[in-house]
Amino acid sequence: MIPAYENAVKHLKKLPGLGQRSAERIAMHLLVEKPETLDRLIETLTSAARAVKRCPQTGNICEGDLCDIYADTHRNRQVICVVEQVTDLIAIERSGTFKGTYHVLHGKLSPIQGVRPEHLNLTSLKTRLHDDAVSELILALSNDIEGEATCHYIQECVVEKRPVTITRIGFGLPSGGGVTYADSATLKSALEGRRVYS
Amino acid sequence: MIPAYENAVKHLKKLPGLGQRSAERIAMHLLVEKPETLDRLIETLTSAARAVKRCPQTGNICEGDLCDIYADTHRNRQVICVVEQVTDLIAIERSGTFKGTYHVLHGKLSPIQGVRPEHLNLTSLKTRLHDDAVSELILALSNDIEGEATCHYIQECVVEKRPVTITRIGFGLPSGGGVTYADSATLKSALEGRRVYS
Repeated sequence: MIPAYENAVKHLKKLPGLGQRSAERIAMHLLVEKPETLDRLIETLTSAARAVKRCPQTGNICEGDLCDIYADTHRNRQVICVVEQVTDLIAIERSGTFKGTYHVLHGKLSPIQGVRPEHLNLTSLKTRLHDDAVSELILALSNDIEGEATCHYIQECVVEKRPVTITRIGFGLPSGGGVTYADSATLKSALEGRRVYS
Repeated sequence: MIPAYENAVKHLKKLPGLGQRSAERIAMHLLVEKPETLDRLIETLTSAARAVKRCPQTGNICEGDLCDIYADTHRNRQVICVVEQVTDLIAIERSGTFKGTYHVLHGKLSPIQGVRPEHLNLTSLKTRLHDDAVSELILALSNDIEGEATCHYIQECVVEKRPVTITRIGFGLPSGGGVTYADSATLKSALEGRRVYS
C-alpha cells in the first residue's frame, strides 16, 4: 500500500520485543504524528553507537578502556557473575546485592540456532580466571536447556581443573509469586532447588 | 554510568509502548548485539520520513497526491468513518468489513492535555461533507470521555444542520470475551449498548 511505510515497519519489527502492532505504532509516531522527533532519535543512536564499546575484560558496555564495574577497586574481581546479556547485568545491579564483577557471554550455547562456544565471550573469561585469581564463578544463566548446556561447557572446558568454586543462581518461585499461579517447569525447578529450612 | 547509552535509552523510551526495560533491550540490540543493523534501520526510517505524506482529503498516510483508499473508485466516498489515528484505520481495514472512506483526526479533544478543535484534522472533514455529498458519518472514536467529547463536537460544530446520518461504533464485550473477565466500564458499555434480540 505505502511501500516506504511498510518497509519502516518491517525493519522496526526486527527489534527485540516488537510485534506488528507495536512496530506500526512506533512507525506512525516517528513518520506521521511526531516527525520532528526522528532526527533527534537518529542523532542520539548514532552518537551512542560511536561511543559505546565492549569492555575487553568483562564484555560489559563501556565508554572508556574498561567498564565502570571492573575498574571500580571496591568490586571484588575474585568473584565473577557470568551472565548472558548486558541487560541481565543491569537487572542484577539494580537489585543491589552483588559486590563482585561480571562476565557477559553475549549469548548462550544453542546447537539449534547455531551458537557454538567460539561465538561466546569465553576466551577472556579463561584468562580472567587465572589473572584475577578467581575464587568463585556464579553462573547466572537462564533456567532452560541452553543455559544448562552453557553451564556444563563452562565447567568442563573453561574452568577445567582450576580450584574455582562454581555456583549457579537459585531457581523457583519468583518473589511475590504463589504456587497456584506458577507453571509446571517453575514448580519443578522450585522443588529441585529446595533447601533445608531451619 | 555510560551517558551515551543512557541517552539512547531515554530517547527510545519516548516512543509509544516502550518502557524502561524494552527501551534498554532495543538499545542493547542496536548498539551492542547487532550494531550492523543500526545503519540500515536509520536509512529505512529516513527515506520513509521523506516519502510518507498526509492525504489532504482524509489525513491518512500516502506516497502520492491522495491516499490509496480515497483514490480507489470502488470505495464509497459518501460514507466516512472517522478515526483518531492511522493505526485505527489500519485495524478496521484489516477486519475487511468497511467499503467506505476514512477521515483521520490525528487525535481527540482533551482539555487536560490541551488538545483543542484547531489541533485536529477537522477543516477538511467539513469540506468533504459538502464536496462528497456525504450521507453517513461513522464515528469510530474511543470509548472514553475524550472520544465522547470529540463525537459531540463533530455533531454540533462540524456536521451542524447538514442532512447527514451520524452513527457511533458499538461498544461492549470483545469477540471471544466472557462476562467474568470484562472490566466494569466495558460491562457498563455493553449493557447500555444492548439490542433487541430476534
